[in-house]
Amino acid sequence: MRVCRQVDEFREACDATRRGGGSVGLVPTMGALHGGHLALVEEARRQSSDVAVSIFVNPTQFGPNEDLARYPRDLEGDLGKCEQAGAALVFAPAIDEMYPAEEHTRVHVASLTEHLCGASRPGHFEGVTTIVAKLFAVTGSCTAVFGRKDYQQLKVIERMVRDLLLPVRVVGYPIVRETDGLALSSRNLYLSADERQSALSIPRALSGAVARFSAGERSVLALREPVVAAIDAAGLRVDYATLADADEIAPLSDRVADRALFAVAAFAGKTRLIDNVVLGEDPAPISA
Amino acid sequence: MRVCRQVDEFREACDATRRGGGSVGLVPTMGALHGGHLALVEEARRQSSDVAVSIFVNPTQFGPNEDLARYPRDLEGDLGKCEQAGAALVFAPAIDEMYPAEEHTRVHVASLTEHLCGASRPGHFEGVTTIVAKLFAVTGSCTAVFGRKDYQQLKVIERMVRDLLLPVRVVGYPIVRETDGLALSSRNLYLSADERQSALSIPRALSGAVARFSAGERSVLALREPVVAAIDAAGLRVDYATLADADEIAPLSDRVADRALFAVAAFAGKTRLIDNVVLGEDPAPISA
Repeated sequence: MRVCRQVDEFREACDATRRGGGSVGLVPTMGALHGGHLALVEEARRQSSDVAVSIFVNPTQFGPNEDLARYPRDLEGDLGKCEQAGAALVFAPAIDEMYPAEEHTRVHVASLTEHLCGASRPGHFEGVTTIVAKLFAVTGSCTAVFGRKDYQQLKVIERMVRDLLLPVRVVGYPIVRETDGLALSSRNLYLSADERQSALSIPRALSGAVARFSAGERSVLALREPVVAAIDAAGLRVDYATLADADEIAPLSDRVADRALFAVAAFAGKTRLIDNVVLGEDPAPISA
Repeated sequence: MRVCRQVDEFREACDATRRGGGSVGLVPTMGALHGGHLALVEEARRQSSDVAVSIFVNPTQFGPNEDLARYPRDLEGDLGKCEQAGAALVFAPAIDEMYPAEEHTRVHVASLTEHLCGASRPGHFEGVTTIVAKLFAVTGSCTAVFGRKDYQQLKVIERMVRDLLLPVRVVGYPIVRETDGLALSSRNLYLSADERQSALSIPRALSGAVARFSAGERSVLALREPVVAAIDAAGLRVDYATLADADEIAPLSDRVADRALFAVAAFAGKTRLIDNVVLGEDPAPISA
Protein backbone atom coordinates (compact mmCIF):
# COMPACT_ATOMS: atom_id res chain seq x y z
CA MET A 1 0.00 0.00 0.00
CA ARG A 2 1.36 3.37 -1.02
CA VAL A 3 0.74 6.52 1.00
CA CYS A 4 0.72 9.80 -0.98
CA ARG A 5 0.89 13.16 0.76
CA GLN A 6 1.14 15.30 -2.39
CA VAL A 7 -1.50 16.00 -5.02
CA ASP A 8 0.89 15.38 -7.91
CA GLU A 9 2.07 12.08 -6.50
CA PHE A 10 -1.46 10.77 -5.95
CA ARG A 11 -2.61 11.95 -9.38
CA GLU A 12 0.32 10.17 -11.03
CA ALA A 13 -0.37 6.98 -9.05
CA CYS A 14 -4.01 6.96 -10.23
CA ASP A 15 -2.94 7.71 -13.81
CA ALA A 16 -0.43 4.85 -13.64
CA THR A 17 -3.15 2.44 -12.49
CA ARG A 18 -5.34 3.33 -15.46
CA ARG A 19 -2.41 3.28 -17.90
CA GLY A 20 -1.71 -0.26 -16.74
CA GLY A 21 -5.27 -1.26 -17.59
CA GLY A 22 -6.57 -1.09 -14.03
CA SER A 23 -9.42 0.95 -12.58
CA VAL A 24 -9.45 3.21 -9.56
CA GLY A 25 -11.98 2.94 -6.74
CA LEU A 26 -12.05 5.97 -4.46
CA VAL A 27 -13.29 6.04 -0.86
CA PRO A 28 -13.20 9.63 0.42
CA THR A 29 -13.02 9.79 4.22
CA MET A 30 -12.12 12.14 7.06
CA GLY A 31 -10.23 9.32 8.79
CA ALA A 32 -11.04 7.88 12.25
CA LEU A 33 -11.96 4.85 10.19
CA HIS A 34 -14.54 2.37 11.44
CA GLY A 35 -16.30 -0.69 10.05
CA GLY A 36 -18.56 1.48 7.89
CA HIS A 37 -15.58 2.93 6.07
CA LEU A 38 -14.02 -0.52 5.69
CA ALA A 39 -17.24 -1.81 4.14
CA LEU A 40 -16.91 1.00 1.59
CA VAL A 41 -13.35 -0.12 0.85
CA GLU A 42 -14.59 -3.69 0.35
CA GLU A 43 -17.33 -2.46 -1.97
CA ALA A 44 -14.79 -0.38 -3.91
CA ARG A 45 -12.59 -3.49 -4.26
CA ARG A 46 -15.51 -5.31 -5.86
CA GLN A 47 -15.99 -2.41 -8.29
CA SER A 48 -12.38 -1.64 -9.29
CA SER A 49 -8.90 -3.11 -9.44
CA ASP A 50 -7.15 -0.58 -7.16
CA VAL A 51 -8.75 1.14 -4.19
CA ALA A 52 -7.60 4.53 -2.99
CA VAL A 53 -8.72 5.85 0.39
CA SER A 54 -8.44 9.58 0.92
CA ILE A 55 -8.05 10.76 4.50
CA PHE A 56 -8.57 14.48 4.96
CA VAL A 57 -10.42 16.33 7.71
CA ASN A 58 -11.91 19.01 5.49
CA PRO A 59 -12.10 22.32 7.35
CA THR A 60 -14.57 24.00 4.96
CA GLN A 61 -17.39 21.59 5.80
CA PHE A 62 -17.32 22.46 9.51
CA GLY A 63 -19.21 25.46 10.86
CA PRO A 64 -17.52 27.93 13.22
CA ASN A 65 -19.13 26.33 16.30
CA GLU A 66 -18.65 22.73 15.20
CA ASP A 67 -16.14 20.05 16.13
CA LEU A 68 -13.32 20.59 13.62
CA ALA A 69 -10.69 21.00 16.34
CA ARG A 70 -11.68 17.92 18.32
CA TYR A 71 -12.67 15.73 15.35
CA PRO A 72 -10.92 12.38 16.00
CA ARG A 73 -7.63 11.93 14.11
CA ASP A 74 -5.59 8.71 14.06
CA LEU A 75 -3.59 8.53 10.84
CA GLU A 76 -1.38 5.68 12.01
CA GLY A 77 -4.35 3.54 13.05
CA ASP A 78 -6.17 4.47 9.82
CA LEU A 79 -3.23 3.39 7.65
CA GLY A 80 -3.19 -0.01 9.36
CA LYS A 81 -6.91 -0.45 8.71
CA CYS A 82 -6.56 0.58 5.06
CA GLU A 83 -3.72 -1.88 4.54
CA GLN A 84 -5.73 -4.64 6.21
CA ALA A 85 -8.78 -3.84 4.08
CA GLY A 86 -6.71 -4.19 0.92
CA ALA A 87 -6.42 -0.55 -0.18
CA ALA A 88 -3.70 0.01 -2.79
CA LEU A 89 -3.32 3.72 -2.14
CA VAL A 90 -3.92 6.22 0.63
CA PHE A 91 -4.07 9.92 -0.13
CA ALA A 92 -3.51 11.93 3.06
CA PRO A 93 -2.73 15.50 2.02
CA ALA A 94 -1.86 18.44 4.22
CA ILE A 95 -4.42 21.25 4.31
CA ASP A 96 -2.47 23.57 2.03
CA GLU A 97 -2.22 20.88 -0.62
CA MET A 98 -6.02 20.96 -0.93
CA TYR A 99 -6.50 24.65 -0.10
CA PRO A 100 -3.56 26.64 -1.49
CA ALA A 101 -3.07 30.27 -0.42
CA GLU A 102 -5.43 32.77 -2.07
CA GLU A 103 -7.85 30.04 -3.08
CA HIS A 104 -11.27 31.43 -3.87
CA THR A 105 -13.19 28.64 -5.61
CA ARG A 106 -16.26 26.84 -4.34
CA VAL A 107 -18.59 24.30 -5.90
CA HIS A 108 -22.21 24.76 -4.89
CA VAL A 109 -25.20 22.50 -5.45
CA ALA A 110 -28.45 24.38 -4.90
CA SER A 111 -31.89 23.02 -4.01
CA LEU A 112 -30.84 19.58 -2.69
CA THR A 113 -28.74 21.31 -0.03
CA GLU A 114 -31.44 23.64 1.29
CA HIS A 115 -33.03 21.35 3.87
CA LEU A 116 -32.08 18.75 6.51
CA CYS A 117 -28.34 19.00 7.23
CA GLY A 118 -28.10 21.88 4.75
CA ALA A 119 -30.46 23.97 6.87
CA SER A 120 -28.84 22.96 10.19
CA ARG A 121 -25.27 23.40 8.99
CA PRO A 122 -25.01 26.48 6.71
CA GLY A 123 -22.10 26.12 4.29
CA HIS A 124 -21.57 22.45 5.15
CA PHE A 125 -22.47 21.02 1.76
CA GLU A 126 -20.56 23.69 -0.13
CA GLY A 127 -17.52 22.53 1.82
CA VAL A 128 -18.32 18.92 0.95
CA THR A 129 -18.89 19.47 -2.76
CA THR A 130 -15.80 21.65 -3.03
CA ILE A 131 -13.46 19.11 -1.43
CA VAL A 132 -15.03 16.16 -3.24
CA ALA A 133 -14.73 17.98 -6.58
CA LYS A 134 -11.03 18.48 -5.80
CA LEU A 135 -10.56 14.83 -4.82
CA PHE A 136 -12.29 13.74 -8.03
CA ALA A 137 -10.10 16.11 -10.08
CA VAL A 138 -6.95 14.63 -8.57
CA THR A 139 -8.12 11.01 -8.80
CA GLY A 140 -9.43 11.24 -12.36
CA SER A 141 -11.82 8.68 -13.83
CA CYS A 142 -12.96 6.42 -10.99
CA THR A 143 -15.74 4.69 -9.09
CA ALA A 144 -16.34 6.56 -5.83
CA VAL A 145 -18.10 4.82 -2.95
CA PHE A 146 -20.02 6.80 -0.31
CA GLY A 147 -22.03 5.58 2.66
CA ARG A 148 -25.77 6.05 2.74
CA LYS A 149 -25.64 7.20 6.35
CA ASP A 150 -24.84 10.59 4.83
CA TYR A 151 -27.76 10.13 2.47
CA GLN A 152 -28.21 13.79 1.58
CA GLN A 153 -24.47 14.08 0.93
CA LEU A 154 -24.65 11.08 -1.41
CA LYS A 155 -27.48 12.65 -3.40
CA VAL A 156 -25.73 16.02 -3.52
CA ILE A 157 -22.54 14.42 -4.81
CA GLU A 158 -24.44 12.36 -7.37
CA ARG A 159 -26.04 15.57 -8.62
CA MET A 160 -22.72 17.42 -8.74
CA VAL A 161 -21.15 14.61 -10.77
CA ARG A 162 -24.08 14.56 -13.18
CA ASP A 163 -24.23 18.34 -13.52
CA LEU A 164 -20.50 18.93 -13.91
CA LEU A 165 -20.18 15.94 -16.28
CA LEU A 166 -17.42 14.46 -14.13
CA PRO A 167 -15.90 11.12 -15.22
CA VAL A 168 -16.92 9.48 -11.95
CA ARG A 169 -19.35 6.67 -11.15
CA VAL A 170 -20.86 7.28 -7.72
CA VAL A 171 -21.93 4.24 -5.70
CA GLY A 172 -23.95 4.47 -2.49
CA TYR A 173 -23.44 1.77 0.11
CA PRO A 174 -25.97 0.75 2.80
CA ILE A 175 -25.57 2.00 6.36
CA VAL A 176 -23.42 -0.27 8.52
CA ARG A 177 -24.74 -0.61 12.08
CA GLU A 178 -23.59 -1.94 15.42
CA THR A 179 -25.32 -5.17 16.38
CA ASP A 180 -27.78 -3.18 18.50
CA GLY A 181 -28.69 -0.96 15.53
CA LEU A 182 -26.70 2.27 16.06
CA ALA A 183 -25.28 3.53 12.77
CA LEU A 184 -21.49 3.48 12.75
CA SER A 185 -19.96 6.97 12.90
CA SER A 186 -16.59 8.42 13.82
CA ARG A 187 -18.52 10.74 16.14
CA ASN A 188 -19.75 7.75 18.21
CA LEU A 189 -16.33 8.00 19.85
CA TYR A 190 -17.58 11.16 21.59
CA LEU A 191 -20.50 9.40 23.32
CA SER A 192 -20.57 8.60 27.06
CA ALA A 193 -22.03 5.21 28.02
CA ASP A 194 -25.37 6.88 28.84
CA GLU A 195 -25.43 8.85 25.60
CA ARG A 196 -24.54 5.70 23.67
CA GLN A 197 -27.58 4.01 25.20
CA SER A 198 -29.92 6.95 24.53
CA ALA A 199 -28.68 7.18 20.94
CA LEU A 200 -30.30 3.81 20.26
CA SER A 201 -33.63 5.62 20.29
CA ILE A 202 -32.83 6.88 16.77
CA PRO A 203 -32.63 3.52 14.92
CA ARG A 204 -35.46 2.20 17.12
CA ALA A 205 -37.72 5.10 16.20
CA LEU A 206 -36.86 4.76 12.50
CA SER A 207 -37.63 1.05 12.74
CA GLY A 208 -41.03 1.95 14.12
CA ALA A 209 -41.61 4.25 11.16
CA VAL A 210 -40.69 1.47 8.74
CA ALA A 211 -43.23 -0.80 10.47
CA ARG A 212 -45.97 1.83 10.28
CA PHE A 213 -45.15 2.55 6.64
CA SER A 214 -45.28 -1.19 5.86
CA ALA A 215 -48.66 -1.36 7.58
CA GLY A 216 -49.91 1.25 5.14
CA GLU A 217 -49.44 4.55 6.96
CA ARG A 218 -48.80 7.36 4.48
CA SER A 219 -49.49 10.48 6.55
CA VAL A 220 -46.37 12.57 7.12
CA LEU A 221 -47.72 13.70 10.48
CA ALA A 222 -48.57 10.17 11.65
CA LEU A 223 -45.17 8.85 10.54
CA ARG A 224 -43.19 11.72 11.97
CA GLU A 225 -44.71 12.38 15.39
CA PRO A 226 -43.93 9.05 17.11
CA VAL A 227 -40.32 9.31 15.91
CA VAL A 228 -39.84 12.79 17.35
CA ALA A 229 -41.58 11.76 20.59
CA ALA A 230 -39.47 8.64 21.06
CA ILE A 231 -36.12 10.35 20.44
CA ASP A 232 -37.16 13.23 22.65
CA ALA A 233 -38.25 10.86 25.40
CA ALA A 234 -34.82 9.21 25.32
CA GLY A 235 -33.26 12.53 26.30
CA LEU A 236 -31.84 13.51 22.91
CA ARG A 237 -32.48 16.90 21.35
CA VAL A 238 -34.01 16.45 17.91
CA ASP A 239 -32.37 18.71 15.32
CA TYR A 240 -34.65 17.53 12.55
CA ALA A 241 -36.78 14.50 11.75
CA THR A 242 -37.95 14.99 8.20
CA LEU A 243 -39.70 13.05 5.49
CA ALA A 244 -38.41 14.16 2.12
CA ASP A 245 -38.37 13.27 -1.54
CA ALA A 246 -35.59 10.67 -1.76
CA ASP A 247 -34.03 12.19 -4.89
CA GLU A 248 -34.59 15.94 -4.65
CA ILE A 249 -34.37 16.07 -0.80
CA ALA A 250 -37.39 18.36 -0.64
CA PRO A 251 -39.46 17.95 2.56
CA LEU A 252 -42.89 16.37 2.25
CA SER A 253 -45.69 18.05 4.16
CA ASP A 254 -48.78 15.92 3.66
CA ARG A 255 -48.71 12.40 2.26
CA VAL A 256 -45.87 10.00 1.43
CA ALA A 257 -45.93 8.15 -1.87
CA ASP A 258 -44.30 4.75 -2.51
CA ARG A 259 -40.84 5.85 -1.49
CA ALA A 260 -39.51 8.59 0.78
CA LEU A 261 -36.45 9.48 2.79
CA PHE A 262 -36.92 9.64 6.55
CA ALA A 263 -33.86 11.44 7.89
CA VAL A 264 -33.07 12.27 11.51
CA ALA A 265 -30.43 14.40 13.21
CA ALA A 266 -30.31 14.60 16.98
CA PHE A 267 -27.91 15.67 19.69
CA ALA A 268 -26.83 13.25 22.38
CA GLY A 269 -25.21 15.78 24.71
CA LYS A 270 -22.94 17.80 22.44
CA THR A 271 -22.68 15.06 19.84
CA ARG A 272 -24.76 15.40 16.71
CA LEU A 273 -25.81 12.05 15.26
CA ILE A 274 -27.55 11.39 11.95
CA ASP A 275 -29.41 8.38 10.63
CA ASN A 276 -31.96 7.66 7.94
CA VAL A 277 -34.05 5.09 6.19
CA VAL A 278 -35.65 5.18 2.75
CA LEU A 279 -39.24 4.07 3.35
CA GLY A 280 -40.37 1.66 0.66
CA GLU A 281 -36.78 0.65 -0.03
CA ASP A 282 -34.69 -0.02 3.07
CA PRO A 283 -35.35 -2.64 5.73
CA ALA A 284 -35.88 -1.51 9.33
CA PRO A 285 -32.58 -0.57 11.03
CA ILE A 286 -33.47 -2.98 13.83
CA SER A 287 -35.36 -6.09 12.82
CA ALA A 288 -38.42 -6.76 14.95
CA MET B 1 -12.00 16.83 -38.49
CA ARG B 2 -14.62 15.15 -36.33
CA VAL B 3 -17.68 16.99 -35.02
CA CYS B 4 -19.11 15.69 -31.71
CA ARG B 5 -22.55 16.74 -30.51
CA GLN B 6 -22.69 14.43 -27.46
CA VAL B 7 -20.71 14.65 -24.23
CA ASP B 8 -19.88 10.94 -24.23
CA GLU B 9 -18.67 10.98 -27.81
CA PHE B 10 -16.38 13.98 -27.25
CA ARG B 11 -15.04 12.54 -23.98
CA GLU B 12 -14.22 9.26 -25.71
CA ALA B 13 -12.51 11.07 -28.60
CA CYS B 14 -10.27 12.98 -26.17
CA ASP B 15 -9.54 9.79 -24.21
CA ALA B 16 -8.63 8.03 -27.46
CA THR B 17 -6.19 10.81 -28.37
CA ARG B 18 -4.40 10.45 -25.05
CA ARG B 19 -4.46 6.64 -25.18
CA GLY B 20 -2.75 6.89 -28.55
CA GLY B 21 0.03 8.94 -26.99
CA GLY B 22 -1.30 12.29 -28.21
CA SER B 23 -2.22 15.37 -26.23
CA VAL B 24 -5.38 17.45 -26.35
CA GLY B 25 -5.42 21.21 -26.84
CA LEU B 26 -8.77 22.82 -26.05
CA VAL B 27 -10.05 26.15 -27.37
CA PRO B 28 -13.38 26.95 -25.71
CA THR B 29 -15.47 29.37 -27.78
CA MET B 30 -19.01 30.61 -28.22
CA GLY B 31 -18.65 30.35 -31.99
CA ALA B 32 -18.91 33.25 -34.48
CA LEU B 33 -15.24 32.55 -34.93
CA HIS B 34 -12.86 35.29 -36.00
CA GLY B 35 -9.11 35.68 -36.41
CA GLY B 36 -8.65 35.90 -32.66
CA HIS B 37 -10.15 32.46 -32.14
CA LEU B 38 -8.11 31.06 -35.02
CA ALA B 39 -4.92 32.40 -33.44
CA LEU B 40 -5.90 30.44 -30.30
CA VAL B 41 -6.30 27.30 -32.43
CA GLU B 42 -2.84 27.88 -33.92
CA GLU B 43 -1.37 28.36 -30.46
CA ALA B 44 -3.11 25.18 -29.25
CA ARG B 45 -1.62 23.30 -32.22
CA ARG B 46 1.84 24.40 -31.12
CA GLN B 47 1.12 23.13 -27.60
CA SER B 48 -0.58 19.79 -28.30
CA SER B 49 -0.99 17.09 -30.94
CA ASP B 50 -4.79 17.34 -31.37
CA VAL B 51 -6.80 20.52 -31.06
CA ALA B 52 -10.44 20.48 -30.02
CA VAL B 53 -12.59 23.59 -30.45
CA SER B 54 -15.75 23.77 -28.37
CA ILE B 55 -18.59 25.87 -29.77
CA PHE B 56 -21.33 26.58 -27.26
CA VAL B 57 -23.22 29.79 -26.61
CA ASN B 58 -23.44 29.42 -22.85
CA PRO B 59 -26.73 30.82 -21.57
CA THR B 60 -25.67 31.06 -17.91
CA GLN B 61 -23.02 33.70 -18.59
CA PHE B 62 -25.52 36.14 -20.08
CA GLY B 63 -27.58 38.47 -17.88
CA PRO B 64 -31.33 38.80 -18.36
CA ASN B 65 -30.94 42.06 -20.33
CA GLU B 66 -27.95 40.96 -22.38
CA ASP B 67 -27.56 39.73 -25.93
CA LEU B 68 -28.01 35.94 -25.59
CA ALA B 69 -30.83 35.80 -28.13
CA ARG B 70 -29.07 37.87 -30.78
CA TYR B 71 -25.54 36.61 -30.12
CA PRO B 72 -24.16 35.71 -33.59
CA ARG B 73 -24.39 32.01 -34.49
CA ASP B 74 -22.89 30.45 -37.62
CA LEU B 75 -22.07 26.81 -36.98
CA GLU B 76 -21.52 25.93 -40.62
CA GLY B 77 -19.13 28.82 -41.15
CA ASP B 78 -17.39 28.01 -37.85
CA LEU B 79 -16.83 24.37 -38.84
CA GLY B 80 -15.19 25.47 -42.08
CA LYS B 81 -12.87 27.81 -40.16
CA CYS B 82 -11.97 25.10 -37.62
CA GLU B 83 -11.16 22.63 -40.41
CA GLN B 84 -9.04 25.23 -42.18
CA ALA B 85 -7.22 26.07 -38.96
CA GLY B 86 -6.32 22.41 -38.46
CA ALA B 87 -8.60 21.47 -35.57
CA ALA B 88 -8.95 17.70 -35.11
CA LEU B 89 -12.21 17.89 -33.15
CA VAL B 90 -15.15 20.21 -32.71
CA PHE B 91 -17.45 19.83 -29.73
CA ALA B 92 -20.78 21.54 -30.43
CA PRO B 93 -23.25 20.27 -27.84
CA ALA B 94 -26.93 21.12 -27.52
CA ILE B 95 -27.89 23.08 -24.42
CA ASP B 96 -29.38 20.11 -22.58
CA GLU B 97 -26.16 18.15 -23.02
CA MET B 98 -24.35 20.76 -20.92
CA TYR B 99 -27.29 21.68 -18.66
CA PRO B 100 -29.42 18.58 -18.04
CA ALA B 101 -32.85 18.94 -16.45
CA GLU B 102 -32.81 19.57 -12.68
CA GLU B 103 -29.20 20.70 -12.77
CA HIS B 104 -28.30 22.70 -9.69
CA THR B 105 -24.50 22.96 -9.65
CA ARG B 106 -22.41 26.08 -10.01
CA VAL B 107 -18.70 26.75 -9.71
CA HIS B 108 -17.91 30.11 -8.18
CA VAL B 109 -14.60 31.95 -7.89
CA ALA B 110 -14.80 34.75 -5.33
CA SER B 111 -12.68 37.89 -5.04
CA LEU B 112 -11.25 37.99 -8.60
CA THR B 113 -14.81 38.22 -9.95
CA GLU B 114 -15.96 41.13 -7.79
CA HIS B 115 -14.83 44.03 -9.94
CA LEU B 116 -14.66 45.08 -13.61
CA CYS B 117 -16.88 42.78 -15.69
CA GLY B 118 -17.91 40.96 -12.52
CA ALA B 119 -19.42 44.15 -11.13
CA SER B 120 -21.06 45.16 -14.43
CA ARG B 121 -22.41 41.72 -15.22
CA PRO B 122 -23.66 39.99 -12.05
CA GLY B 123 -23.51 36.21 -12.38
CA HIS B 124 -21.47 36.37 -15.58
CA PHE B 125 -18.32 34.77 -14.21
CA GLU B 126 -20.22 32.09 -12.32
CA GLY B 127 -21.71 31.12 -15.69
CA VAL B 128 -18.24 31.14 -17.24
CA THR B 129 -16.55 29.07 -14.54
CA THR B 130 -19.42 26.59 -14.45
CA ILE B 131 -19.39 25.93 -18.20
CA VAL B 132 -15.59 25.88 -18.40
CA ALA B 133 -15.43 23.41 -15.49
CA LYS B 134 -17.84 21.19 -17.41
CA LEU B 135 -15.83 21.51 -20.63
CA PHE B 136 -12.66 20.62 -18.73
CA ALA B 137 -14.40 17.63 -17.10
CA VAL B 138 -15.46 16.28 -20.49
CA THR B 139 -12.14 17.00 -22.20
CA GLY B 140 -9.95 15.60 -19.44
CA SER B 141 -6.26 16.37 -19.15
CA CYS B 142 -5.47 19.11 -21.68
CA THR B 143 -3.86 22.43 -22.50
CA ALA B 144 -6.59 25.07 -22.77
CA VAL B 145 -5.94 28.30 -24.64
CA PHE B 146 -7.83 31.50 -23.82
CA GLY B 147 -7.50 34.98 -25.30
CA ARG B 148 -6.22 37.82 -23.17
CA LYS B 149 -8.94 40.15 -24.46
CA ASP B 150 -11.05 38.54 -21.74
CA TYR B 151 -8.21 39.12 -19.31
CA GLN B 152 -10.28 38.88 -16.13
CA GLN B 153 -11.87 35.66 -17.44
CA LEU B 154 -8.40 34.22 -18.06
CA LYS B 155 -7.29 35.01 -14.51
CA VAL B 156 -10.53 33.63 -13.04
CA ILE B 157 -10.13 30.37 -14.99
CA GLU B 158 -6.47 30.09 -14.01
CA ARG B 159 -7.52 30.43 -10.38
CA MET B 160 -10.34 27.90 -10.72
CA VAL B 161 -7.95 25.37 -12.26
CA ARG B 162 -5.39 25.91 -9.52
CA ASP B 163 -7.96 25.83 -6.70
CA LEU B 164 -9.88 22.77 -7.94
CA LEU B 165 -6.63 20.95 -8.80
CA LEU B 166 -7.84 20.33 -12.35
CA PRO B 167 -5.50 18.47 -14.75
CA VAL B 168 -5.46 21.42 -17.13
CA ARG B 169 -2.69 23.74 -18.26
CA VAL B 170 -4.14 27.18 -18.99
CA VAL B 171 -2.40 29.30 -21.63
CA GLY B 172 -3.25 32.96 -22.24
CA TYR B 173 -2.76 34.30 -25.75
CA PRO B 174 -2.21 37.98 -26.66
CA ILE B 175 -5.07 40.08 -28.00
CA VAL B 176 -5.43 39.92 -31.77
CA ARG B 177 -6.34 43.28 -33.31
CA GLU B 178 -7.54 44.66 -36.61
CA THR B 179 -4.85 46.59 -38.47
CA ASP B 180 -6.28 49.84 -37.08
CA GLY B 181 -6.05 48.55 -33.49
CA LEU B 182 -9.58 47.42 -32.61
CA ALA B 183 -9.52 44.16 -30.65
CA LEU B 184 -11.21 41.33 -32.56
CA SER B 185 -14.55 40.32 -31.05
CA SER B 186 -17.61 38.43 -32.24
CA ARG B 187 -19.59 41.45 -31.02
CA ASN B 188 -17.85 43.73 -33.55
CA LEU B 189 -20.40 42.30 -36.00
CA TYR B 190 -23.03 44.40 -34.21
CA LEU B 191 -21.26 47.72 -34.91
CA SER B 192 -22.47 50.26 -37.45
CA ALA B 193 -19.80 51.98 -39.52
CA ASP B 194 -19.93 55.02 -37.23
CA GLU B 195 -19.76 52.89 -34.09
CA ARG B 196 -16.88 50.93 -35.59
CA GLN B 197 -15.00 54.21 -36.05
CA SER B 198 -15.81 55.49 -32.56
CA ALA B 199 -14.76 52.18 -31.03
CA LEU B 200 -11.18 52.90 -32.11
CA SER B 201 -11.04 55.40 -29.27
CA ILE B 202 -10.58 52.47 -26.89
CA PRO B 203 -7.27 51.06 -28.21
CA ARG B 204 -6.11 54.63 -28.92
CA ALA B 205 -6.79 55.70 -25.34
CA LEU B 206 -5.09 52.59 -23.95
CA SER B 207 -2.10 53.30 -26.19
CA GLY B 208 -1.94 56.76 -24.66
CA ALA B 209 -1.91 55.20 -21.20
CA VAL B 210 0.95 52.90 -22.20
CA ALA B 211 2.92 55.94 -23.41
CA ARG B 212 2.31 57.88 -20.19
CA PHE B 213 3.20 54.81 -18.10
CA SER B 214 6.41 54.38 -20.11
CA ALA B 215 7.22 58.03 -19.49
CA GLY B 216 7.05 57.33 -15.76
CA GLU B 217 3.50 58.23 -14.82
CA ARG B 218 2.35 56.10 -11.86
CA SER B 219 -0.68 58.00 -10.57
CA VAL B 220 -3.91 56.07 -11.03
CA LEU B 221 -5.81 59.32 -11.48
CA ALA B 222 -3.40 60.71 -14.06
CA LEU B 223 -3.40 57.47 -16.02
CA ARG B 224 -7.14 56.95 -15.88
CA GLU B 225 -8.62 60.39 -16.55
CA PRO B 226 -7.37 60.94 -20.12
CA VAL B 227 -8.58 57.47 -21.07
CA VAL B 228 -12.09 58.08 -19.78
CA ALA B 229 -12.16 61.54 -21.38
CA ALA B 230 -11.02 60.28 -24.79
CA ILE B 231 -13.50 57.38 -24.97
CA ASP B 232 -16.25 59.64 -23.73
CA ALA B 233 -15.36 62.30 -26.32
CA ALA B 234 -15.64 59.67 -29.07
CA GLY B 235 -19.29 59.19 -28.14
CA LEU B 236 -18.99 55.87 -26.32
CA ARG B 237 -20.44 55.31 -22.86
CA VAL B 238 -17.70 54.14 -20.51
CA ASP B 239 -18.86 51.19 -18.35
CA TYR B 240 -15.56 51.05 -16.49
CA ALA B 241 -11.96 52.08 -17.03
CA THR B 242 -10.04 50.56 -14.17
CA LEU B 243 -6.47 50.05 -13.11
CA ALA B 244 -6.21 46.84 -11.15
CA ASP B 245 -3.75 44.35 -9.75
CA ALA B 246 -2.97 42.13 -12.74
CA ASP B 247 -3.25 38.88 -10.76
CA GLU B 248 -5.91 39.47 -8.12
CA ILE B 249 -8.00 41.88 -10.27
CA ALA B 250 -8.41 44.25 -7.33
CA PRO B 251 -8.77 47.92 -8.34
CA LEU B 252 -5.89 50.26 -7.53
CA SER B 253 -6.81 53.61 -6.07
CA ASP B 254 -3.60 55.56 -5.68
CA ARG B 255 -0.35 54.54 -7.32
CA VAL B 256 0.56 51.88 -9.85
CA ALA B 257 3.64 49.72 -9.25
CA ASP B 258 5.72 48.06 -12.00
CA ARG B 259 2.84 46.18 -13.53
CA ALA B 260 -0.91 46.73 -13.60
CA LEU B 261 -3.94 45.79 -15.63
CA PHE B 262 -5.72 48.68 -17.36
CA ALA B 263 -9.11 47.29 -18.40
CA VAL B 264 -11.86 49.14 -20.25
CA ALA B 265 -15.47 48.32 -21.05
CA ALA B 266 -17.55 50.77 -23.05
CA PHE B 267 -20.76 50.80 -25.02
CA ALA B 268 -20.80 51.80 -28.68
CA GLY B 269 -24.55 52.16 -29.06
CA LYS B 270 -25.95 48.96 -27.55
CA THR B 271 -22.76 47.01 -28.11
CA ARG B 272 -20.51 46.47 -25.12
CA LEU B 273 -16.83 46.27 -26.04
CA ILE B 274 -13.92 45.35 -23.81
CA ASP B 275 -10.20 45.81 -24.19
CA ASN B 276 -7.18 45.91 -21.93
CA VAL B 277 -3.47 46.27 -21.63
CA VAL B 278 -1.11 45.17 -18.89
CA LEU B 279 1.04 48.22 -18.19
CA GLY B 280 4.67 47.25 -17.76
CA GLU B 281 4.16 44.11 -19.85
CA ASP B 282 2.15 44.64 -23.05
CA PRO B 283 3.09 46.92 -25.94
CA ALA B 284 0.70 49.73 -26.91
CA PRO B 285 -2.35 48.44 -28.85
CA ILE B 286 -1.54 50.97 -31.57
CA SER B 287 2.12 51.68 -32.17
CA ALA B 288 2.94 55.38 -32.29
